[in-house]
Amino acid sequence: MKIVRTFAEARDLASGRVGFVPTMGYLHEGHISLVDAARRDCDTVTVSIFVNPLQFAPTEDLASYPRDLDRDVALVEAAGADVVFAPPLSEMYPSDPLTRVTVSGVTETMEGAIRPGHFDGVATVVAKLFAGVAPDVAYFGRKDAQQLVTVRRMTADLSFPIRVVGSPIVRESDGLALSSRNTYLDPAQRIAARALSTGVLAAAAAVRRGERSGGILEEIAARPVDAEPGIDLDYATLADQETAAPLGALDRPAFLAVAARVGRTRLLDNVHIDPDGGEWVPDEGIRLAETSILYREA
Amino acid sequence: MKIVRTFAEARDLASGRVGFVPTMGYLHEGHISLVDAARRDCDTVTVSIFVNPLQFAPTEDLASYPRDLDRDVALVEAAGADVVFAPPLSEMYPSDPLTRVTVSGVTETMEGAIRPGHFDGVATVVAKLFAGVAPDVAYFGRKDAQQLVTVRRMTADLSFPIRVVGSPIVRESDGLALSSRNTYLDPAQRIAARALSTGVLAAAAAVRRGERSGGILEEIAARPVDAEPGIDLDYATLADQETAAPLGALDRPAFLAVAARVGRTRLLDNVHIDPDGGEWVPDEGIRLAETSILYREA
Repeated sequence: MKIVRTFAEARDLASGRVGFVPTMGYLHEGHISLVDAARRDCDTVTVSIFVNPLQFAPTEDLASYPRDLDRDVALVEAAGADVVFAPPLSEMYPSDPLTRVTVSGVTETMEGAIRPGHFDGVATVVAKLFAGVAPDVAYFGRKDAQQLVTVRRMTADLSFPIRVVGSPIVRESDGLALSSRNTYLDPAQRIAARALSTGVLAAAAAVRRGERSGGILEEIAARPVDAEPGIDLDYATLADQETAAPLGALDRPAFLAVAARVGRTRLLDNVHIDPDGGEWVPDEGIRLAETSILYREA
Repeated sequence: MKIVRTFAEARDLASGRVGFVPTMGYLHEGHISLVDAARRDCDTVTVSIFVNPLQFAPTEDLASYPRDLDRDVALVEAAGADVVFAPPLSEMYPSDPLTRVTVSGVTETMEGAIRPGHFDGVATVVAKLFAGVAPDVAYFGRKDAQQLVTVRRMTADLSFPIRVVGSPIVRESDGLALSSRNTYLDPAQRIAARALSTGVLAAAAAVRRGERSGGILEEIAARPVDAEPGIDLDYATLADQETAAPLGALDRPAFLAVAARVGRTRLLDNVHIDPDGGEWVPDEGIRLAETSILYREA
């Protein structure tokens, strides 16, 4: 495996079908599942590690976002990647970037409403990574559901010849969706945070029982979060997988998303719901048997 | 030469070093000079022909913009291009495009101030063409000087591995810079329109005589336009080639641009000024010996 700092080197090391996993580092099994998927499908697997300042608001956690490149490199190498692209800020933004990629419509609800400018930063850096790395397939986690909608739309609108794959959420053994930000949680918050997955998985069970009402599914998902004193719910929303618009009923591919604040940490969870043989099938994700590598000593 | 309607076909027909000439059609010798430059440098020459609605304001001339695909195809074939990419609207914008590429700073002066949103439309379609065609080199005329600044900045900011080449203005034998919009001019306007090139070429002569003051060069360029009753000057500006910011003095690579309205037709002209061996050398462009193909019957 090679570690490179420039787009030119990343392109030069790629051959055949190129799979690309863009990350902000501090990797966990969710990221590794993306590398695994790329390894199965592609000739070259390139993983980028870059904490993108453009997608953080001034009030957010850019400075404290967890970083450990050595740890990340070891994990990605063990997963069989070919190239780690870890650009310094001077490669990504050699001068003040004047160009922004914005995606309207799909970014107006949920995270877009709560984090103004966030998806502009995401769309801009992903467009830049797509242009500079030139992959054939790119892998994103379903956990950041609205990000996936935004990236798919940007990719189609700008005619990038890149297939965007969304991979299932990976969960701790108690259900908590993996996130690098879980490391911010203290032990009591870590326990309280279970309420998000309890909610969305209860809604998934209701879908399997035949529930189709957006309002009822949202209420089921919100209930455990509302009941947990240490958590403030931002939203529980059934949304269209293509547009991120709220849905009154489950009548097209959708995701049921919850967002909540646990102390100063914002957490997200969701279940994607797709049609399969006349049924609506929720994707509850993948459950780890043991504690995530996020909590293990390197 | 192949004529294709989809990005996928355009990419499939490309091999080796790919030179790309994006146009809005109704081609003239200025466009052909770009095809010639691409033919000299590249293995595959791809020319796109698409009148991009995103870069026209509702009040502008989208509906009347001259179009003649058969004529364009014959000209491009004679120039030795390999591929004409002439996408229908349904290939470029299959659904309402939600994604916009905006470049701030360099688009705030001159054309950007007079045509709000114009450069957003340009940056968006050029980013899309770059993503979908994936060329190695792209050729633009120096005539649209601020467009060239905007495209260069977008390309660098988004890390497209594409070299952007700016080619000299091609002029009628009396000096008028070629533009598809020249066909809007009636005979009296056509004569009056000479004032733009008279102005910028007089300023070029002043540069060769040693003049360095932005204000004086602008005044020299504006004088023939101001003296012509049928023309309204929008601006005469000495601007930085990298930032499009106005310059008080010629102390870096610059262009001296004029814009004016002749009846309902807006016309642009400029001279780029580059350092060469301790001198500042204006690029007066290339003068045709006979009337442009714009005025010839197909």
